[in-house]
Amino acid sequence: MNVKPLGNRLLIKTIVEEKKTEGGIVLPDSAKEKPQTALVVEVGNLEDLDLKAGDKVIFSKYAGSEIKVDGEDHIIIDADDVLAKVED
Amino acid sequence: MNVKPLGNRLLIKTIVEEKKTEGGIVLPDSAKEKPQTALVVEVGNLEDLDLKAGDKVIFSKYAGSEIKVDGEDHIIIDADDVLAKVED
Amino acid sequence: MNVKPLGNRLLIKTIVEEKKTEGGIVLPDSAKEKPQTALVVEVGNLEDLDLKAGDKVIFSKYAGSEIKVDGEDHIIIDADDVLAKVED
Amino acid sequence: MNVKPLGNRLLIKTIVEEKKTEGGIVLPDSAKEKPQTALVVEVGNLEDLDLKAGDKVIFSKYAGSEIKVDGEDHIIIDADDVLAKVED
Amino acid sequence: MNVKPLGNRLLIKTIVEEKKTEGGIVLPDSAKEKPQTALVVEVGNLEDLDLKAGDKVIFSKYAGSEIKVDGEDHIIIDADDVLAKVED
Amino acid sequence: MNVKPLGNRLLIKTIVEEKKTEGGIVLPDSAKEKPQTALVVEVGNLEDLDLKAGDKVIFSKYAGSEIKVDGEDHIIIDADDVLAKVED
Amino acid sequence: MNVKPLGNRLLIKTIVEEKKTEGGIVLPDSAKEKPQTALVVEVGNLEDLDLKAGDKVIFSKYAGSEIKVDGEDHIIIDADDVLAKVED
Repeated sequence: MNVKPLGNRLLIKTIVEEKKTEGGIVLPDSAKEKPQTALVVEVGNLEDLDLKAGDKVIFSKYAGSEIKVDGEDHIIIDADDVLAKVED
Repeated sequence: MNVKPLGNRLLIKTIVEEKKTEGGIVLPDSAKEKPQTALVVEVGNLEDLDLKAGDKVIFSKYAGSEIKVDGEDHIIIDADDVLAKVED
Repeated sequence: MNVKPLGNRLLIKTIVEEKKTEGGIVLPDSAKEKPQTALVVEVGNLEDLDLKAGDKVIFSKYAGSEIKVDGEDHIIIDADDVLAKVED
Repeated sequence: MNVKPLGNRLLIKTIVEEKKTEGGIVLPDSAKEKPQTALVVEVGNLEDLDLKAGDKVIFSKYAGSEIKVDGEDHIIIDADDVLAKVED
Repeated sequence: MNVKPLGNRLLIKTIVEEKKTEGGIVLPDSAKEKPQTALVVEVGNLEDLDLKAGDKVIFSKYAGSEIKVDGEDHIIIDADDVLAKVED
Repeated sequence: MNVKPLGNRLLIKTIVEEKKTEGGIVLPDSAKEKPQTALVVEVGNLEDLDLKAGDKVIFSKYAGSEIKVDGEDHIIIDADDVLAKVED
Repeated sequence: MNVKPLGNRLLIKTIVEEKKTEGGIVLPDSAKEKPQTALVVEVGNLEDLDLKAGDKVIFSKYAGSEIKVDGEDHIIIDADDVLAKVED
């Protein structure tokens, strides 16, 4: 099954971070329940961004619409709410 | 009888999902009363989207205006509120 | 007497629907007091829409300004608030 | 004395309608204190509308700024708030 | 001393009207404390309006910023808030 | 040390006026705590205005962000909030 | 690890100022808990600004999204919320 975002949107899947990753991104305590890091699963027709499936991104908390795809939580988010790309 | 959406709008008909579809889209519990998946019934003059009658889409909860057509619930929705297309 | 809407507006006259029309549009109960179906009476200089007097339309509840013409209730409505055209 | 509206504005003078004009415009009871019908007195540089002094118009309740000219109530109103032209 | 308005603004000086001018502009009672008639003192780079020092104008109540120039009350006002020009 | 405003902004330094300057700008009593007159210290890339360091300006109360430069209060303000230039 | 801001954004790291720096920027008391001075760490595709990693900037309090990178607090901020560049 395939969910294809429309327009300037992406389908992302949040990454559950370990609380004390050594040298990695650790989210502020107040945001622990709703992580801000995600993996790009599918992209729509992005206007300005160069992102593809598999990219790791940071997105605005509370942005986007939550849906389940194949039983797992995903988020459809507007490209403008993706703040940064993470390169390990 | 035919309801033709005007401008950048679509006429859609929500799909009542089974609660535990194997490998399918399962809506979060908080959205159970108002599903987010729908079938496109009629399209207006869509500006940027390539959608046609019969397509399965995911749309923003609370978006659109509810009407009944031939006794059944439908929604007239702005194309910008259609988030994604579902391909099985 | 003639009321000519100015700009991108229409003069419409709401249609009082029977509650259980067979195979017709039935409005949701919560909207019974203020129907959403209307007949186009006069059009202004419409920008994008192809509507004329006599067309049957569905419009956004609460949109428009109510006036009486020749003693009967009418609504002057912005063309953007006309959602769909109904073809029987 | 002459009050010349600037930009996309008109100077109008409300018409006090008889309550039960035969075959004429009768305002809804809730709007009785503030009529919606007016005579155009002066026009500014109107952008899209073809209106001139002497035309009878219907305008949005509450729109415009009230001033007195030669001791009589007038309203300076934005052209976008003039809904329709009335032709007898 | 000279105060030169910047951009699409004017420097105006309110005119204190006599309460019962014969055949002149009389402000509604509710606006008595804050007159709406003014004299243009200086103009900035006006975009669409043809106004010059000495012109008599009507402006929106509450619009503009009050300043004192040479000990006298003035208002710097956006040109869009000048409603009309008064010609005696 | 040098603070260079970015974009359509200016760095200004408020001028503390004497309360009863003869023939000068006297601020209304309600604004005494926060003067509206300032000296331009640095300009960013101004879009439409012709202002330079040393110019005396009048700006909107409450506009801008307060910072200290070399121990003294300054304000970084959007050029659109500068109302007028004062020429003595 | 590298966090690359997307679009018209920057990754910045706030600078903790000494309270009484001689001749330097001292923040107003009310802003002590959340400094307004920062070092640019990474830039996205900036539209109008000429800023690079290592630049010292002043930014709007409350603007931006807080994230931790390698265990340290950073802010992803829209370029429009960067008020000025500081040159020592």
